Amino acid sequence: MSADLEEKVTPDVLRAAWPYLAAGERAEACLLLSRSEGDDFFLELSPFDQAGVLQNVSLGAQRTWMRLLAPDDAADLLQILDLEQRERLLALLDEPTHREVSALLAYAEDAAGGLMSPRFARVRPDMRADEAIRYLRLQAQERIETIYYAYVLDREQRLLGVASFRELFASPPERVVREVMNEEPVMVREDMDQESVAQLFQGRGFLALPVVDADRHMKGIVTIDDIVDVVQEEATEDVQKFGGMEALDVPYLQTGFWSMVRKRGGWLAVLFIGELLTASAMSQFEEYIAEAVVLAVFIPLIISSGGNSGSQASTLIIRAMALGEVRLTDWWRIVGRELAAGVSLGVLLATLGVVRVVAWEEMFGTYGKHAALVAITVGGSLVGVVTLGALCGSMLPFILRRLSLDPASASAPFVATIVDVSGLLIYFGIARLVLTGTLLG
Amino acid sequence: MSADLEEKVTPDVLRAAWPYLAAGERAEACLLLSRSEGDDFFLELSPFDQAGVLQNVSLGAQRTWMRLLAPDDAADLLQILDLEQRERLLALLDEPTHREVSALLAYAEDAAGGLMSPRFARVRPDMRADEAIRYLRLQAQERIETIYYAYVLDREQRLLGVASFRELFASPPERVVREVMNEEPVMVREDMDQESVAQLFQGRGFLALPVVDADRHMKGIVTIDDIVDVVQEEATEDVQKFGGMEALDVPYLQTGFWSMVRKRGGWLAVLFIGELLTASAMSQFEEYIAEAVVLAVFIPLIISSGGNSGSQASTLIIRAMALGEVRLTDWWRIVGRELAAGVSLGVLLATLGVVRVVAWEEMFGTYGKHAALVAITVGGSLVGVVTLGALCGSMLPFILRRLSLDPASASAPFVATIVDVSGLLIYFGIARLVLTGTLLG
Repeated sequence: MSADLEEKVTPDVLRAAWPYLAAGERAEACLLLSRSEGDDFFLELSPFDQAGVLQNVSLGAQRTWMRLLAPDDAADLLQILDLEQRERLLALLDEPTHREVSALLAYAEDAAGGLMSPRFARVRPDMRADEAIRYLRLQAQERIETIYYAYVLDREQRLLGVASFRELFASPPERVVREVMNEEPVMVREDMDQESVAQLFQGRGFLALPVVDADRHMKGIVTIDDIVDVVQEEATEDVQKFGGMEALDVPYLQTGFWSMVRKRGGWLAVLFIGELLTASAMSQFEEYIAEAVVLAVFIPLIISSGGNSGSQASTLIIRAMALGEVRLTDWWRIVGRELAAGVSLGVLLATLGVVRVVAWEEMFGTYGKHAALVAITVGGSLVGVVTLGALCGSMLPFILRRLSLDPASASAPFVATIVDVSGLLIYFGIARLVLTGTLLG
Repeated sequence: MSADLEEKVTPDVLRAAWPYLAAGERAEACLLLSRSEGDDFFLELSPFDQAGVLQNVSLGAQRTWMRLLAPDDAADLLQILDLEQRERLLALLDEPTHREVSALLAYAEDAAGGLMSPRFARVRPDMRADEAIRYLRLQAQERIETIYYAYVLDREQRLLGVASFRELFASPPERVVREVMNEEPVMVREDMDQESVAQLFQGRGFLALPVVDADRHMKGIVTIDDIVDVVQEEATEDVQKFGGMEALDVPYLQTGFWSMVRKRGGWLAVLFIGELLTASAMSQFEEYIAEAVVLAVFIPLIISSGGNSGSQASTLIIRAMALGEVRLTDWWRIVGRELAAGVSLGVLLATLGVVRVVAWEEMFGTYGKHAALVAITVGGSLVGVVTLGALCGSMLPFILRRLSLDPASASAPFVATIVDVSGLLIYFGIARLVLTGTLLG
């Protein structure tokens, strides 16, 4: 760390410099902040960055910062580390938090249980509103996640209802909680997938939702700020899968080089092996090309048009599925729509393609006396591959989901590979039909 | 609407049936719910769906539901409608809300001002904590967005600081607000882009942030539930652009057919015109192909490998930019990284490609006595195009952003088109180098 930076480290300076610092420098810089600035700064870091800092500071600082974390944030951080480091940092927590965090670590990272905080405000159903408020005030001094909802539990810790702080506050002081609470609150099952949890929050203005087990025992709460992270994380995963690779799970610049190459290389190799089929398909048509070299000229144009059309269709469907706008049972509505869209778009591109062939023929005489037939072959193939692209692109996500695979794996490159191979068959099929007896012997 | 559905309409039934209902049926179904269920259901709809329902109910229902909406939600809904309908619905609001909503409509939809609610809780700096709480309790009975932050304003409505309800609640009753409040709260400028606002919320646990003008006059608050919507919306836009099309802005199944075809057709046509360059490039090499038809066989394989590599790289960079992980000034770090990744991945695919050529030669004698040279040509080209793909894919988002265009337009198909054309030049360039005197005359 340069002396220059050392003199004027403020949270803002550090935020700006952050991406350019190595792990050791980051930890050092955090320690240069004042105690309270440093604490706040540490808390606003992503779990990944927090883990990086903790691995580079003294045991004392590790203990201080670990103890600042809410149990759910501590669990997120620990999930990143290997088992040995995890145990070492867990041991720094006080006993009750240790227990809470261990319980959270037992859940899958992307389940509601792995997202929740066990620190919620609880009240009894027979309390009066003013008693409940006083009791919440007491709890507000502890480290509970939010006082804005009071969860009403019976003696077995089963959830009877939820009263928002605001409702308690606005109701007559002598009214009992049972009469103020909502008895049918929206609840989250502990094993619910985090994407579904995010959909429950959508557009309903909840700040937090209770997490319960099968018997309605209260386990914790999921707060909306965690949902923002979930939404970003899921979108990033989808986008990366859609780009034709495994999700990185870690910010790009912080991903180890070889780990990144592995995540990209795996899919690239799979796609490459798929694309080898194009070489096999092409071999079948070598004679056609030998007889009419002009056929080779349009191959990239035609297969890429199919790929582009497929890429659009699969993006639309994958995203609509992620947002819950389209369900598995909708597939037949979408087949119709995409068939119509594919033909319309195919006709559009075919028109452009025919214009190109005719124009070049007029200007340069490129295609000789069979120009019209070449134009028909190119135009017809474009309608075929663009339609095929729209159908493959839109149906592949459904097929993957039906097979319980992630629809987001129907990436642009994956769809393009399928369409490339079948597009070549369409192209040479139409060429044989149109050109036999003229360009083809 | 079938009598069957009519008998048992509950919010859950309606939620499940929603995607399958036409606009008129949706409105009808909402009216079949009980008054309070119908109100809740209406409020949880997206602005787009709310607009659809309002266009299909009586004036009385329109008035009731319009008046339920918070000003920011009303503004979101009205922004969807044409001017005439907008005026008509605005007129149904009571006078103060009418003024608030009109003020919000003046902001750009994707600016902080277009996102904020003007209904926040305010306190004076010289109030005691218990007075402030009593005053907040009073405000909680009105329709303010949240009581969880009290905004401390001077007489000119300038923001002096923010006190969280919880802090006021936990502090000694006689302490004055000025001493409890945070004097350096995180603030949002009214013209700030919504994506930047979302980044401010990231990982900091804010439930709401104050929106101010250039002179720190308090204009409203942005709440975290709006941020969840922003994050979803921006991710959807990015994903759709990345798939090679204009963002739809409306759920897939609710987009008009021709509007969707137009949004897809525009980009498809642009990409097609770009791909026409491949036909021109290929024409230059017709003689090569005539002499060595085997060259045509590997064209789809090679250009698609470049496209796939480019698609991976551009996805990674676009997403990292959207999350603020990578800045414009990082480009040189990324060039180095992607160059190395591209070469590594290229060598991987080249190995697979060479194995394929050699294996087919051994098994079927496909490539004749120059098989080794063919293998070298294919392998060398793969290293070249995969590296080129990684470089183009990673740099294009930087170039677009430098030109103040949206980096997300560096879509998989866009990158593939660039790489297709240049990939052909690499392939035939290497072929000339390696095969002249043997396969090429």
